[in-house]
Amino acid sequence: MTTQDEPVRRATAGGGRLLRPSAKVLPEHARVHNRSLVLQTLYGSGQQSRADVARSTGLTRVTVSDLVAELMEDGLVVELGRREAAPSENVHRGKPAILLDIDRAAFHIIGIDLGDYFVFRGAVLDLGGHILQRAEVALDGSTGDAASVKAFALIERLLGQATAPILGIGVGSPGIVDDAGVVLSAPNLGWVDELLQASIAARFSLPVVVVNDANAAVLAEHSFGDAEGDTMLVKVGHGVGAGLLLGGVQLFGSRFTAGEIGHVVVDPDGALCSCGKSGCLETWLAIPWLDAKLAAATTSANRDAVLREAGERLGIALAPVVGALGLTEIVLSGPYLDGPLAEAAATTLRARTMAAPGSDLTLRMTTLGDDIVLRGAAVAVLSKQLGFS
Amino acid sequence: MTTQDEPVRRATAGGGRLLRPSAKVLPEHARVHNRSLVLQTLYGSGQQSRADVARSTGLTRVTVSDLVAELMEDGLVVELGRREAAPSENVHRGKPAILLDIDRAAFHIIGIDLGDYFVFRGAVLDLGGHILQRAEVALDGSTGDAASVKAFALIERLLGQATAPILGIGVGSPGIVDDAGVVLSAPNLGWVDELLQASIAARFSLPVVVVNDANAAVLAEHSFGDAEGDTMLVKVGHGVGAGLLLGGVQLFGSRFTAGEIGHVVVDPDGALCSCGKSGCLETWLAIPWLDAKLAAATTSANRDAVLREAGERLGIALAPVVGALGLTEIVLSGPYLDGPLAEAAATTLRARTMAAPGSDLTLRMTTLGDDIVLRGAAVAVLSKQLGFS
Repeated sequence: MTTQDEPVRRATAGGGRLLRPSAKVLPEHARVHNRSLVLQTLYGSGQQSRADVARSTGLTRVTVSDLVAELMEDGLVVELGRREAAPSENVHRGKPAILLDIDRAAFHIIGIDLGDYFVFRGAVLDLGGHILQRAEVALDGSTGDAASVKAFALIERLLGQATAPILGIGVGSPGIVDDAGVVLSAPNLGWVDELLQASIAARFSLPVVVVNDANAAVLAEHSFGDAEGDTMLVKVGHGVGAGLLLGGVQLFGSRFTAGEIGHVVVDPDGALCSCGKSGCLETWLAIPWLDAKLAAATTSANRDAVLREAGERLGIALAPVVGALGLTEIVLSGPYLDGPLAEAAATTLRARTMAAPGSDLTLRMTTLGDDIVLRGAAVAVLSKQLGFS
Repeated sequence: MTTQDEPVRRATAGGGRLLRPSAKVLPEHARVHNRSLVLQTLYGSGQQSRADVARSTGLTRVTVSDLVAELMEDGLVVELGRREAAPSENVHRGKPAILLDIDRAAFHIIGIDLGDYFVFRGAVLDLGGHILQRAEVALDGSTGDAASVKAFALIERLLGQATAPILGIGVGSPGIVDDAGVVLSAPNLGWVDELLQASIAARFSLPVVVVNDANAAVLAEHSFGDAEGDTMLVKVGHGVGAGLLLGGVQLFGSRFTAGEIGHVVVDPDGALCSCGKSGCLETWLAIPWLDAKLAAATTSANRDAVLREAGERLGIALAPVVGALGLTEIVLSGPYLDGPLAEAAATTLRARTMAAPGSDLTLRMTTLGDDIVLRGAAVAVLSKQLGFS
């Protein structure tokens, strides 16, 4: 602001509240932040020289060299050898630069998906999010503590399969999960205020992060899929949930309930839902409902009609969300969605929303298949342990 | 992370993308950030000693004293005199502390509301967001450049009414406004890619911030009203728009279209809207539509039915948004909304959404009346000029 020569007046009474009172920033925070920035840059692009990293991050070469030395000591960054230089470069600039990369094999991550109704699935992944080993444990209808015990057994088995130090354990759980990894509510597993993150951490003495499974899925889609812009990932399984990623930032809601669209009523004259209301989105879209309707459909035309109706209901429910958030992309994950269902949802959505200037709304299937939650849980570990915010 | 003694393995190929690659943080950023933090603390609570500010911010007393000296030089902070001390305090702690506050009268802000269909309204406000002077200019159907000229004339008149240095000019405009204050599209005013912020700044040589009017309104509700938690402010005028404030952070969308709910179709069999679709939310809720329907209603029961139907449509459109975002509060701003319309909207919303654990959804009228956009535009100036993020 411009400086003013006006005399200072007596202050009047009355306060006000402004946006986001944030915490103090101290110089030592800068180092931690910049370390993550170097890691992120290498993670995203790989194979760069110290000078490349300095250019991408805006940090000085001295700072980058210093941070890289620390990251190499921690085993996270490795030198790959010298860049193959163009002849002109040899003449003008001396020896070609040494290339750096994240050492993607130096650590393993355990990823767990608790969102399937019948089995808990898990994998050992490298830092690049590639699946190295898999395991699963049948749920056999377990709920409450018995379900937790099944999760522990799965993690134990995967830890035995890992062949590198473990960076951490990532878990995608159904239900409402808070930012301390407490599952506030997961009706299918009989969990209420289940201290899942804390109990896994205590049992295995490793860093653990527990997140909602649809939120894990949208992380995976962002990191390994093609998610761009303002994305909603709709995950259909035993229930219907969603993960939101807006301008590269995940949205959880102050009560951690963002994405809970399964029990939004789309037609009060619809079927009675387990929640007590009628015509919730889940009564058209969730697997048990679709299973039953498709089993009763005697012809392929009837089958198509069931799927199209489900897609239309999904489009009706999503249209106001697309408008309110200015979404540019809907990604679907789950069985039955590809084909007539997705087509009907896209048609309904386009008919019910105004196209944003300069953009078309995309509605598509995930490219990550059934591993989306496992891989997203691994990304959650990477984010937490490597300081990617 | 724990340090590891494992040998470093050869890195595998393949990159990935993580959340929010952010800019570097340098130590000098800390000072600017901490200066804002001190201002925010005083703005929110007022009348605090340097020691109080140190306690609230977590900064050292030396840092606070240093920043306060700078803020006093800039005329933003003023000493009010010594605190009236309790007798015991006198004995143990020597002289009572000097109280500081923002000097709320030291600067004035110009706030402008372009969202009314017939007049442009403006005010001179103090730093506390109180309205000191008002002015308005009849629009007389002006569009395009003629509308801009009316806005300039209004600002000029208000600048003549101000009696303190001007911190900045804040403008709430209808339509889609980007983060550089360009009105990308405002059909009622005939503006496309209108460089409003730049042209006002060039004309008056003052800091200017132009924001969408519903986004200004939700800022005002947050600063001066009772907005708590995850709030959507629905503003009804010639059109229908919304501002979103989630966990204290405003949501704009990557294309600046967040909150554009007016042209979401709630019933494809509804009336033909100006946008070409049928049954948009605006055909039930916007003032011209309600004016016409209420004029045709011959009895008070008919009038009630019109309002209730509009409220029901609003509830149907908002239910999926409430679910997807985990909203805890809907605030309404505009004529006709209070009474049967809001009641019907609340009833419909409750019937169509699942209550979040531990919380009830609130739907209420704003307490800020017709000044909500003016005051919100002033908050936008405060945020930009004083560095409140």
